[in-house]
Amino acid sequence: MEFEIQLKAYAAQVDSRLAELLPDSSLPPAELHEAMRYSCLAPGKRLRPAFCLACCIAAGGAIEDAFDAACAVEMVHCFSLIHDDLPAIDNDDLRRGMPTCHIKFGEAVAILAGDALFALAFDTLSRVKADPARVVAAIGVLTAASGSSGLVGGETIDILAEGKPITADLLEAIHAKKTGALIAASCEIGAIFGGGDQKAIAAMREFGQRIGLAFQIADDVLNEVGSAHLLGKAVGSDRERQKATFPALYGIEASRERARRETELALGALNLTRGSGFLADLSSFSVDRLS
Amino acid sequence: MEFEIQLKAYAAQVDSRLAELLPDSSLPPAELHEAMRYSCLAPGKRLRPAFCLACCIAAGGAIEDAFDAACAVEMVHCFSLIHDDLPAIDNDDLRRGMPTCHIKFGEAVAILAGDALFALAFDTLSRVKADPARVVAAIGVLTAASGSSGLVGGETIDILAEGKPITADLLEAIHAKKTGALIAASCEIGAIFGGGDQKAIAAMREFGQRIGLAFQIADDVLNEVGSAHLLGKAVGSDRERQKATFPALYGIEASRERARRETELALGALNLTRGSGFLADLSSFSVDRLS
Repeated sequence: MEFEIQLKAYAAQVDSRLAELLPDSSLPPAELHEAMRYSCLAPGKRLRPAFCLACCIAAGGAIEDAFDAACAVEMVHCFSLIHDDLPAIDNDDLRRGMPTCHIKFGEAVAILAGDALFALAFDTLSRVKADPARVVAAIGVLTAASGSSGLVGGETIDILAEGKPITADLLEAIHAKKTGALIAASCEIGAIFGGGDQKAIAAMREFGQRIGLAFQIADDVLNEVGSAHLLGKAVGSDRERQKATFPALYGIEASRERARRETELALGALNLTRGSGFLADLSSFSVDRLS
Repeated sequence: MEFEIQLKAYAAQVDSRLAELLPDSSLPPAELHEAMRYSCLAPGKRLRPAFCLACCIAAGGAIEDAFDAACAVEMVHCFSLIHDDLPAIDNDDLRRGMPTCHIKFGEAVAILAGDALFALAFDTLSRVKADPARVVAAIGVLTAASGSSGLVGGETIDILAEGKPITADLLEAIHAKKTGALIAASCEIGAIFGGGDQKAIAAMREFGQRIGLAFQIADDVLNEVGSAHLLGKAVGSDRERQKATFPALYGIEASRERARRETELALGALNLTRGSGFLADLSSFSVDRLS
């Protein structure tokens, strides 16, 4: 219970900082800024920022040290949601229980709002008040996680694999890039700004990669068995378009089991003396979404 | 004549470095990497990299100091071309004399290739071997020039203004953001890596803003009077879709005159002791495209 209160408190703080960092919708181009705010401030659990903040604290830092970085990670996440939802890509009408960005603002503004959020993420990171060497390292981590070796690469493999037979290796590659990379980056960036040494940073990255995989499996299972209300998007949409998913390849039960195992391995990768309670709870929370 | 040889030599060096920095198309996702290389290595004059390198030298640096930064600027330029050409935005089929990215690779891959190039630009900057404080400053300049206050903001204003009456102020705002911002950033980033002081950096930024405006006016005039062969895209396409342009508002001759005046003011903003010859030639070259 205490965990959920803390998670909500983090989300509220992140949302309020995001509202400051996003350009005001009264400034021109108003439509663009409105679309950025609409998508980035839509209700969400802000799990990636929570991982970033928790890893910062676990690495010995204070929440303030990673606060703007946590917002930058959420901006990248929102950019990727806007572009993935586009008609040419996943063609989704519903996101977080609301019309997707292109349904609300049109396709042109949605593409550009995604681009502008992506730029704002790096802008926000570049303005973090910290040792410039740490800032540069964090930017390098976020670019690698979001470009062709990460998020965008994973989405590409995913759409090109639609309707084709899928191997276990390809599925893991898609999930590692599409979801794992940004969650791992959230954890790693938190550790960097928390002042962690190379060993701590590497451990948090591995933790994030495993949790990211568990998290994506949870998403796959939810898409298969969840309600549209809980999910905020159409149920069974992955199956309908023959998306590569864990349930499609292994079935629901084996997918759940794999998610639990990855979570255990993730926590095992950490050797925490501080903040471990929240990180463990946050990890279980990712997997509890399965049931 | 010597100038054009130097410009071509810079372009060849930039192209060869770009070919190294861009992910190999034999690596997965091959289609994405192929699309990135197709668009980013398409024949071009590489004027933005040339401005970046020339300003680095004028600020007291060596060409090597700004070489990867010059490539990063070109990546941002290519990202913006791919997205601007999309059916939902400008819907162009021809770019640099070749089919546009979405015509060649499909819309989904084109959107994602643009995103990946954008990420790679910041990735490239974040890995520049220089004082981290300079790297952070350069990233901040490039994000501001490309996000909602720059390139992406300018494109948004531009498409939302199509077919509507246009004021002189709005036209200058579009051009300043859509073209001026990235050229100014190219110059400023060159000055940063060249080791320029705050005064030199500010002077190069102003120089770049003015040259950027002259450059965009040249583009507008070329679109009106040029041949498709010279332009690499359809002539008169701006007029056809009622784009906001200088010739539409002021006529061809007054537009040419304004471009020349901005070029003079740009050069006046600099007080160069070193490398001024090439920068002056490069500036005139931007305006000579008018005739």
